[in-house]
Amino acid sequence: MEILPGKLLATLNNPDDLKKLNKADLHKVCDELRQYIIDVVSVYGGHFAASLGVVELTVALHYIYNTPYDQLVWDVGHQAYGHKILTGRRDNFITNRKYKGLSGFPKRSESEYDTFGVGHSSTSISAALGMAIASKYKGENRKNIAIIGDGSMTAGMAFEAMNHAGVADTDLLVILNDNGIGIDPNVGALKEYLTDITISPTYNKVRDDVWKLLGKLPVGKTFTRDMASKLEASVKGVVSKSSNLFEALNFRYFGPIDGHNITKLVDTLQDLKNIPGPKLLHIITTKGKGYALAEKDQTKWHAPGLFDKLSGEIYKKKFDVPQPPKYQDVFGHTIVELAEKNKKIFGITPAMPSGSSLNIMMKVMPHRAIDVGIAEQHAVTVSAGLATQGMKVFCNIYSSFMQRAYDQVVHDVAIQKLPVVFCLDRAGLVGDDGPTHHGCYDIAYFRCIPNMIIASPMNEKELRNLMYTAQLDSIKYPFVIRYPRGEGVMPEWKTEFEEIQIGTGRKLKDGNDIAILSLGHPGNFAQAAIRELKTEGINPAHYDLRFVKPIDETLLHEVFSKYEKIITVEDGTIVGGFGTAVLEFMAANNYKATVKILGIPDRIVEHGTPKELHTECGYDAAAIATAVRDLLKEEIKISVTN
Amino acid sequence: MEILPGKLLATLNNPDDLKKLNKADLHKVCDELRQYIIDVVSVYGGHFAASLGVVELTVALHYIYNTPYDQLVWDVGHQAYGHKILTGRRDNFITNRKYKGLSGFPKRSESEYDTFGVGHSSTSISAALGMAIASKYKGENRKNIAIIGDGSMTAGMAFEAMNHAGVADTDLLVILNDNGIGIDPNVGALKEYLTDITISPTYNKVRDDVWKLLGKLPVGKTFTRDMASKLEASVKGVVSKSSNLFEALNFRYFGPIDGHNITKLVDTLQDLKNIPGPKLLHIITTKGKGYALAEKDQTKWHAPGLFDKLSGEIYKKKFDVPQPPKYQDVFGHTIVELAEKNKKIFGITPAMPSGSSLNIMMKVMPHRAIDVGIAEQHAVTVSAGLATQGMKVFCNIYSSFMQRAYDQVVHDVAIQKLPVVFCLDRAGLVGDDGPTHHGCYDIAYFRCIPNMIIASPMNEKELRNLMYTAQLDSIKYPFVIRYPRGEGVMPEWKTEFEEIQIGTGRKLKDGNDIAILSLGHPGNFAQAAIRELKTEGINPAHYDLRFVKPIDETLLHEVFSKYEKIITVEDGTIVGGFGTAVLEFMAANNYKATVKILGIPDRIVEHGTPKELHTECGYDAAAIATAVRDLLKEEIKISVTN
Repeated sequence: MEILPGKLLATLNNPDDLKKLNKADLHKVCDELRQYIIDVVSVYGGHFAASLGVVELTVALHYIYNTPYDQLVWDVGHQAYGHKILTGRRDNFITNRKYKGLSGFPKRSESEYDTFGVGHSSTSISAALGMAIASKYKGENRKNIAIIGDGSMTAGMAFEAMNHAGVADTDLLVILNDNGIGIDPNVGALKEYLTDITISPTYNKVRDDVWKLLGKLPVGKTFTRDMASKLEASVKGVVSKSSNLFEALNFRYFGPIDGHNITKLVDTLQDLKNIPGPKLLHIITTKGKGYALAEKDQTKWHAPGLFDKLSGEIYKKKFDVPQPPKYQDVFGHTIVELAEKNKKIFGITPAMPSGSSLNIMMKVMPHRAIDVGIAEQHAVTVSAGLATQGMKVFCNIYSSFMQRAYDQVVHDVAIQKLPVVFCLDRAGLVGDDGPTHHGCYDIAYFRCIPNMIIASPMNEKELRNLMYTAQLDSIKYPFVIRYPRGEGVMPEWKTEFEEIQIGTGRKLKDGNDIAILSLGHPGNFAQAAIRELKTEGINPAHYDLRFVKPIDETLLHEVFSKYEKIITVEDGTIVGGFGTAVLEFMAANNYKATVKILGIPDRIVEHGTPKELHTECGYDAAAIATAVRDLLKEEIKISVTN
Repeated sequence: MEILPGKLLATLNNPDDLKKLNKADLHKVCDELRQYIIDVVSVYGGHFAASLGVVELTVALHYIYNTPYDQLVWDVGHQAYGHKILTGRRDNFITNRKYKGLSGFPKRSESEYDTFGVGHSSTSISAALGMAIASKYKGENRKNIAIIGDGSMTAGMAFEAMNHAGVADTDLLVILNDNGIGIDPNVGALKEYLTDITISPTYNKVRDDVWKLLGKLPVGKTFTRDMASKLEASVKGVVSKSSNLFEALNFRYFGPIDGHNITKLVDTLQDLKNIPGPKLLHIITTKGKGYALAEKDQTKWHAPGLFDKLSGEIYKKKFDVPQPPKYQDVFGHTIVELAEKNKKIFGITPAMPSGSSLNIMMKVMPHRAIDVGIAEQHAVTVSAGLATQGMKVFCNIYSSFMQRAYDQVVHDVAIQKLPVVFCLDRAGLVGDDGPTHHGCYDIAYFRCIPNMIIASPMNEKELRNLMYTAQLDSIKYPFVIRYPRGEGVMPEWKTEFEEIQIGTGRKLKDGNDIAILSLGHPGNFAQAAIRELKTEGINPAHYDLRFVKPIDETLLHEVFSKYEKIITVEDGTIVGGFGTAVLEFMAANNYKATVKILGIPDRIVEHGTPKELHTECGYDAAAIATAVRDLLKEEIKISVTN
């Protein structure tokens, strides 16, 4: 079924077409744009509710500003579907997030309208400020606009950027898209503050009222002119400069206004165009706006998968036999199970309760499972603070987001040898979110830090046992457990807990001539390869190393003593990762084997399904089997040459 | 000359002794504590002005609070000398920052009074909040206090922590030590805001005045009771909740008060002890307080080295012959030289203008060299924003501080292939600042990121040529140049610029049997080792690889074809670093040499002079020579065995 845009939308091939319309027609553009997003996402999938919430803003921005000369930076960017559709990618939009298709996020190489690649939150103000500084330096009258959600505003770097922008004297507009929710509802003092200034009579109105009333002060005997002017000065002094969080940072504050009122938005942006310096426009929007179910359950409809747009039924695959659970849910249920017995356990997540499944613990133990907001740095150091008091903290952060808290792991956890447990969700290739979200680097970036224990489970049972082990009192070091997004392999996953000795791997099978060493979930790919090779009479050994640090030296001595050909398999970069750790062992012990490292290559891997990407990167079952065959052939070749 | 503490200070062996004193005696404690810091630091060196600024605060905190049960977290911690002296380390204080001596920062393993290890800024609120959450959970009536400077407050993670603390309902006190300066004067909107609320009649006073005046409003015909109460409600609504940046974040705000008035401090802290919830005390102090020269030139006296405490003369070593410059100054002068010709060049530093020597450019090109405050994340992304507009940004960040902006390098620079130049100052072992400041990990943590060019100069000429090369239009990738703190090797360093081909190393000499591959400055240690070995008739080859990524494969093919024994030398961790890159090349090309990797071992290296630490870590000239001899012996051993 072909999905067609509305009649008016069909005529808009770029923002210039939009600018030709009358302001009165913009309502219709908004309706059709919203409908087109619903039509396409329901059938092709993707992020949903966020883009619906900024339909009017998107239209207004491209209507008023001279894009792409004027530059829009969409924070996070999963709300930029409308932006993509209006900027020449309407007909291509059905390829959104598909292998080789459009990216689910703004991306510089995709369009000149995508001024800055995004994906992780809270970068937009810094990026737009950099652009604004350059514009000023070059003497260009270019407008630079960052559009940022209230959730993203809690991450520290947004504040760092505001602090700089407040004194940088550039023409920068920050639009605060206040909808009270990221993927899960936002948390923190800032959210409460924004609610306060929104639900109370609006800030500007209060200020106006005060000014008006002060003007009417009756001066007389008991209340002198001096007292009146003193009062006025005092009130003005307090109210004008420091009465607003953003004005305290030297931004001119405007709003809050209704972000779904297209006329008001257009008029306001038109006015703001002529106001120099750093300014912030606070708009109130509803995530999921225009699709009732999404407005009602915003977390569920953040990225719902495919659905029937009329009934609102979200399609679920049906299976005849029990399916393995997601690693996420194994984490979520297991931490509750452990925390019921071990009163020292805390759970910390930076704004990913539902994604990480820590929401399960948050429900039953609300004082011990905490969402700290989009604040990875703080998440790690508050975990360290808890650990100094004897608490066992499971700090769950996606592998790519952990990049945000690297220094805190080095400085606050590893140097101090605090036994914080880091559960690195979304390790490896995450799929359709693409390069910004792939968890490629964690093995390499953590392996070089002293005192770290780093492990990766091959299946659900291993994950449970690693979590069980990590919370034991005997563990005195930081403990990283990395696992991928998505399904495991064990439908019957609720196994009994067993302690795992730190730094021990598992020999899964002996073999001839060649050994496969795997880390984590890709061990299953290796097993599939071995099954395939068996039919050809090829019989590699297989070891699941389980720990990349400390690595199992006993097992490795066995491997290097028995095998001269070794293949390593991991779901991480081949530069500095698990395979490299094996090379370091080999060099330190002066073994001379041939080692072939399979994993994520040293280039940016784009989006696609995990399966497509594993194939592309050459570490799925077929690729492992091929590597085994090639390596065995090489032996023959060398023998012949000799 | 033995340095003796004052008579009263000599009796204070721990905070309990302090608590026994009358409040009236605290002045004397402050005087003696200040004098003792001056006496010791002038003779033994260390950070100076920061500790002088918090003498009164330190005494007041230990006088009022039940330390160590009540927990103090000193942000950054170079101001904690007074704290160390009062908590059992008075007589040991002369070993401060010496090899095997006291750490220059609070350190958990050193004292139970050091509740959290610090060194990098802005971690204290997160850590203290973690402690406070644990205290509450355990039902302890323990006070948790973070002491943070106004400079540290600009880093994002401090804001993240405030945002969480504002809703966490714990007994947390944040003391904002507002002195307007970090190492260099603070910058940004927050600083201006703090100045505003400090120099205007104090915020609380204004509020009180307003309340008083509102109470006196004369109600009559023109100004009705209704209008009066409306005015009052409006003013209160605006003023009380949102009139202060910190109150907007749900902290109760107190101050500003004079941080050198010990009586006022003691009384205020006593009062605050009984106020629950998150609260912030704003104190105004003078960095360098009590030492006139330090008050006057605070940057110079941040850590002045040894000096005559009476005359204020800072001792400089005198030399008969010209000395090589600091790498820092080569950077500082060279960027100006380049920027004079290339108008696209910008310089960015996060609060390290004098440390990095970017202050040289800031002086002559104030619009193109920007201090963004303690804000590494923002520094990287604002650089990326500038790069999208065709600017060539030299973003200068110390290696260990770059850990703060890891995600921004991956996400905003590398994925987008933006040609930002990162000058990583303080790479390698920095010396007496110790483990929090050693730049051990950058080669490993950057090498795994695609698209990165990573180089390290062996001397000043190489640094200049790398900088020259990095700013050429032909360079389309992020470019890292890492160099150590301190002196180079070329007194005549102002060489002509020459372009270096990306990914090319240098053969410094041919040799027999064994090759030394070095990266960066330690190449000089290798040269010294080679001179030493020459006298013994041992003649290793020497290659300066210069680039660790892309690594010079042509040169490595030559090396592995000619030599079966190879030693690598680097000023970074041996896990995943330069030596490992050589192993990866070897494995990928199926060479079978014996490779010995010298560098920083996989453990936390404490403080000491760089020389002491290079020896300890085994990559100084002597250690390299030893490694060569050992490896040659090994050959003989094997030959004999065979």
